[in-house]
Amino acid sequence: MSRIALIAGAGALPRLLVEGLGQDFVLAELEGQPSDVAKEALKFRFERLVPFLDHLLTEGVERVVMAGAMRRPRLDPELFDARTAALVPRLLAAMQGGDDAALRTMISLFEEWGFEVVGPDSIAPQMVPGEGVLTGAVTPQDATDAEYAARIVAALGAQDLGQGAVVAAGLCLALESLPGTDAMLEFARQHRGVLPEPARARGLLYKAPKPGQDRRVDLPAIGPETVARAATAGLAGIVWEAGGLILLDRAATIAAAEASGLFLWSRAP
Amino acid sequence: MSRIALIAGAGALPRLLVEGLGQDFVLAELEGQPSDVAKEALKFRFERLVPFLDHLLTEGVERVVMAGAMRRPRLDPELFDARTAALVPRLLAAMQGGDDAALRTMISLFEEWGFEVVGPDSIAPQMVPGEGVLTGAVTPQDATDAEYAARIVAALGAQDLGQGAVVAAGLCLALESLPGTDAMLEFARQHRGVLPEPARARGLLYKAPKPGQDRRVDLPAIGPETVARAATAGLAGIVWEAGGLILLDRAATIAAAEASGLFLWSRAP
Repeated sequence: MSRIALIAGAGALPRLLVEGLGQDFVLAELEGQPSDVAKEALKFRFERLVPFLDHLLTEGVERVVMAGAMRRPRLDPELFDARTAALVPRLLAAMQGGDDAALRTMISLFEEWGFEVVGPDSIAPQMVPGEGVLTGAVTPQDATDAEYAARIVAALGAQDLGQGAVVAAGLCLALESLPGTDAMLEFARQHRGVLPEPARARGLLYKAPKPGQDRRVDLPAIGPETVARAATAGLAGIVWEAGGLILLDRAATIAAAEASGLFLWSRAP
Repeated sequence: MSRIALIAGAGALPRLLVEGLGQDFVLAELEGQPSDVAKEALKFRFERLVPFLDHLLTEGVERVVMAGAMRRPRLDPELFDARTAALVPRLLAAMQGGDDAALRTMISLFEEWGFEVVGPDSIAPQMVPGEGVLTGAVTPQDATDAEYAARIVAALGAQDLGQGAVVAAGLCLALESLPGTDAMLEFARQHRGVLPEPARARGLLYKAPKPGQDRRVDLPAIGPETVARAATAGLAGIVWEAGGLILLDRAATIAAAEASGLFLWSRAP
């Protein structure tokens, strides 16, 4: 029988996907990195990846979805079984490369074992919005700012960097780096005083995946808390690349935006 | 007689350049934006730029150096004289474009009046270091980080954005945006806890001009305070593009780096 495996990391996304997975899915977690999903999990280690992949096959798994953040574990040479040891060069390259390289390696290993790797959008399509304004009103200046922000984030993404920027009236107030979106929004809140008067009244948060990124893994995500932080930073709205962002709890996110007077715009790339 | 005019804005740079200008230079400042230079200044407004340029010619000025930060003034249509009014389309385009566009317009107007526009390096060559390590030791990891940071800053510069980044062991901890270098270093200090253990011990600040930027104006600058902030952020050193950065008070900056154990590396582009 065809089953699906959820390879789950930290954050709300794995739990939110469960509804779309049916009763009979397999939950797998990296050892020492539990997820929020309330179900018994298979624990796996990269040093024993081959036995783990084989085990998934014997469980009848045919499709795999990866969701949630995983930290790169330190590999312990003593724990490798013989067959996984043959993968060491690829595993090491993945661990030392950027996030994209690491995820590409993971995906290709699963595919070599015959699994179909699917994205969150095929489990829960409503979580990955297509083009459209979900709430609020977008001004021409917002549209110009979104265009500029999209160019900035694409330039950063080409360097395997952050997936976000804050732009107000043509000025870039904050850029996303390792500390993430929340840290960037707090920076924008602290420093919005440097904006000249007309820009200070508006501004937006823009999020997008990296250009060329595999859309099945590691899409940026926002939720009601992101809306609250954007509002605190004095922003007028949130814009993202349509089809390239996960909306955690769609109804609550839209309600939060409506309550704060923010627009939410899923923008055509 | 050939004289030089210093068009001075805010910050320490104009004052530091004075030593290289001799006794008989002309000081000019935008009305309402005084500099730190202790000398009587010609005040000018963009609405009367043509009479100002003519006046510089009658003063025997042949060379011009621009230094220090100037805010873009709001233009008052009632103040234009007839000849400057003919420049309004160019002035408005400059005011509304990015910093580079605005400075390019300024430079070309001065050149059309026959002035030679020179950079700080021709006034005070010791302030614009060429290639070399000025103090401290650069590790191979630092060199790799500097290479990555240079690529990041070049990608940002292509979007007319900030001139700095903080990188540690291949991870980008902070990116410069409108609030500037000091705000970025404070962000790096607050968030360096997100770095994994080996990266947390080092890291560097990288500064460079935008690709294609006119090196005669608006070069990034660092000084002893930048060193102090980099040290507080836990960084191991500061790297910049050789020939593309102004070292404010060279001796004090090197002394501050030595005292904090930071390296200073003027890196070949």
